[in-house]
Amino acid sequence: MPAIVNQADRRDALAGRAAEIIAAGGLEAATVKAVAGAAGFSTKVVSHYFVDKRDLLLATYRFAAQSSLALARAGQPAGRADAEAHLLALLPTTPTGVRNWKVWFAFWGYAISDPEFSDEQPHQIAASEARVAELMAADPRFAHLDEPSRRQLAGDAMITVLGVALRAVFDLGAWPGARQQRLVREALAAAAPAGRVAALANEA
Amino acid sequence: MPAIVNQADRRDALAGRAAEIIAAGGLEAATVKAVAGAAGFSTKVVSHYFVDKRDLLLATYRFAAQSSLALARAGQPAGRADAEAHLLALLPTTPTGVRNWKVWFAFWGYAISDPEFSDEQPHQIAASEARVAELMAADPRFAHLDEPSRRQLAGDAMITVLGVALRAVFDLGAWPGARQQRLVREALAAAAPAGRVAALANEA
Repeated sequence: MPAIVNQADRRDALAGRAAEIIAAGGLEAATVKAVAGAAGFSTKVVSHYFVDKRDLLLATYRFAAQSSLALARAGQPAGRADAEAHLLALLPTTPTGVRNWKVWFAFWGYAISDPEFSDEQPHQIAASEARVAELMAADPRFAHLDEPSRRQLAGDAMITVLGVALRAVFDLGAWPGARQQRLVREALAAAAPAGRVAALANEA
Repeated sequence: MPAIVNQADRRDALAGRAAEIIAAGGLEAATVKAVAGAAGFSTKVVSHYFVDKRDLLLATYRFAAQSSLALARAGQPAGRADAEAHLLALLPTTPTGVRNWKVWFAFWGYAISDPEFSDEQPHQIAASEARVAELMAADPRFAHLDEPSRRQLAGDAMITVLGVALRAVFDLGAWPGARQQRLVREALAAAAPAGRVAALANEA
């Protein structure tokens, strides 16, 4: 059934165009017409894939989340779990990362007044925290912690990622990657001191 | 010259109404007409105080910043500087605090596509960090740190405040005040251990 595959691919491709438009011009710029124009389609074609602008926005938000998850997966070293690498890959230190955060900020500002949309934020962040906690369980640096401690540390580290991203995206000149990364590394180091990591390495 | 005083007071009162409207219904809801209606004025009167909607939005953003600064000042104990109390008072743990953060998120989402507006965010946060660093210089818990260390700690703590607020405002049920405050306290404790504070207290 290739038509179904194409439907999902086409929605993704259009959401990707919408993400670029939102990051550059805000939510108001992401009209069905503008997205259609950027993708080289008629508005009628876009309307075929999205029920309304609301549907397009939600798809774009989720596209940005998937895009950053893909970045985080690509940042994992081969053959072992690295929770820190996952968190660092979520930071706005690349053009794609910056774009994704801009889409989220635009969407969250909009979601404040929309209960259904605003539920999307804690849902996505909780999913991301769960993923980090899962990596921690398989990461020698954090595997000695019990499960509730790993979940709490994953949540705390995500708070740092959120705060750094919110600060950095509006002031990228003052927030190069190294500065962003330092704060996330420190948030993790507070719970998993280097001494402990070294000891684990010696045991291995 | 009472007319000038009234001009500033009236702008503030209208920005306060706009803040309530934005927190409840997003930026789109804050039309000149809606703000005028909420304040019991004609749109003509509102137009007298604000050049355009842009001017109204910027005034509302700054009003929210001033409102939270007032909360933080009110949270200071009498006769001594308490940097932690200042930071805790910035969290969305009160209806006014939640409203102010919602206004900022709405504004930041909007500001992404507007270079002049987006400059407002780092400017306000830097001012807030400077205020925290200033309190730290007079706070026995942090006064032993040198000035660059205090500034860095103030910046790091503000990152935590931003991250917690971003997380909590969309999920207040899961983020009661105590949970928000724990993270900020831990961010400060990492740099100023309780042992050191106790030692300072004994020296005094």
